[in-house]
Amino acid sequence: MALQEEQKKILCVGLVCLDIISVVDKFPQEDSDSRCLSQRWQRGGNASNSCTVLSLLGSPCAFMGSLCAGPVASFILEDFQRFQVDVSLLRKCGCGAPTSLVISNNGTGSRTILHSNSNIAEVTLDDFNAVDLSAFKWIHWEGRNADEQVKMITRVERYNQTVAPERMIVVSVEIEKPREKLYQLFDRADVVFVSKDVARHLGFQTPTCALRGLRPRLRPGAVLICAWAEKGADAADADGTLLHSDAFPPERVLDTLGAGDTFNAAVIHKLARGRPLQEALTFGCRVAGAKCGFHGYDDIAHTGLI
Amino acid sequence: MALQEEQKKILCVGLVCLDIISVVDKFPQEDSDSRCLSQRWQRGGNASNSCTVLSLLGSPCAFMGSLCAGPVASFILEDFQRFQVDVSLLRKCGCGAPTSLVISNNGTGSRTILHSNSNIAEVTLDDFNAVDLSAFKWIHWEGRNADEQVKMITRVERYNQTVAPERMIVVSVEIEKPREKLYQLFDRADVVFVSKDVARHLGFQTPTCALRGLRPRLRPGAVLICAWAEKGADAADADGTLLHSDAFPPERVLDTLGAGDTFNAAVIHKLARGRPLQEALTFGCRVAGAKCGFHGYDDIAHTGLI
Repeated sequence: MALQEEQKKILCVGLVCLDIISVVDKFPQEDSDSRCLSQRWQRGGNASNSCTVLSLLGSPCAFMGSLCAGPVASFILEDFQRFQVDVSLLRKCGCGAPTSLVISNNGTGSRTILHSNSNIAEVTLDDFNAVDLSAFKWIHWEGRNADEQVKMITRVERYNQTVAPERMIVVSVEIEKPREKLYQLFDRADVVFVSKDVARHLGFQTPTCALRGLRPRLRPGAVLICAWAEKGADAADADGTLLHSDAFPPERVLDTLGAGDTFNAAVIHKLARGRPLQEALTFGCRVAGAKCGFHGYDDIAHTGLI
Repeated sequence: MALQEEQKKILCVGLVCLDIISVVDKFPQEDSDSRCLSQRWQRGGNASNSCTVLSLLGSPCAFMGSLCAGPVASFILEDFQRFQVDVSLLRKCGCGAPTSLVISNNGTGSRTILHSNSNIAEVTLDDFNAVDLSAFKWIHWEGRNADEQVKMITRVERYNQTVAPERMIVVSVEIEKPREKLYQLFDRADVVFVSKDVARHLGFQTPTCALRGLRPRLRPGAVLICAWAEKGADAADADGTLLHSDAFPPERVLDTLGAGDTFNAAVIHKLARGRPLQEALTFGCRVAGAKCGFHGYDDIAHTGLI
């Protein structure tokens, strides 16, 4: 029996990792011994964070990515469950659990991130072929192993040719890191999130320049969205109309970790419900701004924005 | 039925924590994003490390300290088991698991340690009162909550007054951190390990000066031992004789983390078998030196020193 559209989920494909966040009042000097003010573990990874936010906003969602056996796995699984993220598509692997160390300086607000080496076995087309596509209305890819991700998207494109228009799956991608390989994703999605970092790396110094310059890389009718930190976010609609939303910073910025993933989730949440792009863009900025005012994501449920 | 002396164990009381060691080729700049060359988890904490080494050297031993529930606990428990350390005296607590982040710079050899905030519930006299002292021939305290540790040592002193001399428990303490509170441990042990750091903090610039200057703080007949990194280690015997061992550095220093804990364990291992102090001191320097030539502790079993 086919699922009703409103029962279908949003699937996010990408990384889940552990973030260990150490709050300090002074960035450590090399070769010193110091003590942090506080330390906390947080499930991290862009796609994983976006799932958390989608769930908090009320969009049923699933995560697909690799999770390594070991002591971190149980922490991560419990946290996914706490946010009711469907993890039935998790791919178990045997490598070490990727852990990012975040040194958060209370004094200056700086965040220094030391990523683990990336030896994680990424999700492949083989894994993705086992996914029952009829369960999803939207699939979002965090750009990583792009060669393989293009093949997965091709599978969705073929699927979309076999179903009625209202059953077609919307494809979105995030191009966050300035890596040449990822740029092949620009013309493979209905909605493309491109980062300020990538935009600047490609020579665009403002959001408007980035949208104008990058839109030709997209397929006709696709939407391009570019968040620009404290300047808010801009988007180019299917017909090329440029849209903008200001940022909504909290009174005091406490924690910007995952703010971009929050923005993406909030935009997808609205678009997947058929809301206009301008509404989605403004909502994304509001939720991401609110998120910077507290640690983690839980308080998104209490922002009054939902 | 009383245990035979050779069946009795060495008990180490102190900290167990998680060390997450990130190897980099360049120390991270504040507010940057970088990737480490490799990352590994290691059970840490001075008393916990000394147990590992005692076990590898063939001394049956037990660890007493607090272990917090959570994802780290299973990793730590498995690692204790891997080294056959008796953990029946572990005290379960509900606080977060203390985690030290170690940034190990391959380029310069520097080690930058960011300790977690110390909100761990330390072992108390109440916990220690439940210990069957007849199971142990030696108890080593890593100086931490010294007020409470003095009470535990008092319990051992009273016990020692009730048993035959050959059943008396030897008490050793480690005074590693330059904290005034810890100095009350100087006159409460048969064997005192004092660090170079504490010695210098108290105004002594050489190991000999430290032994001469600090020996008056000990009870009569006690032994004082002071390791001094690449200068080896010195000791004052029960009668005040000064002893010395050179260091035995490996061809290439790879990992100095836990070298001090290795030294302490190797010295205790020999002394607990009734070997002379000079032999114990030299053995301590040999095992600690060898340990600096490899990561972790496993290879101690293959140094040919046992």
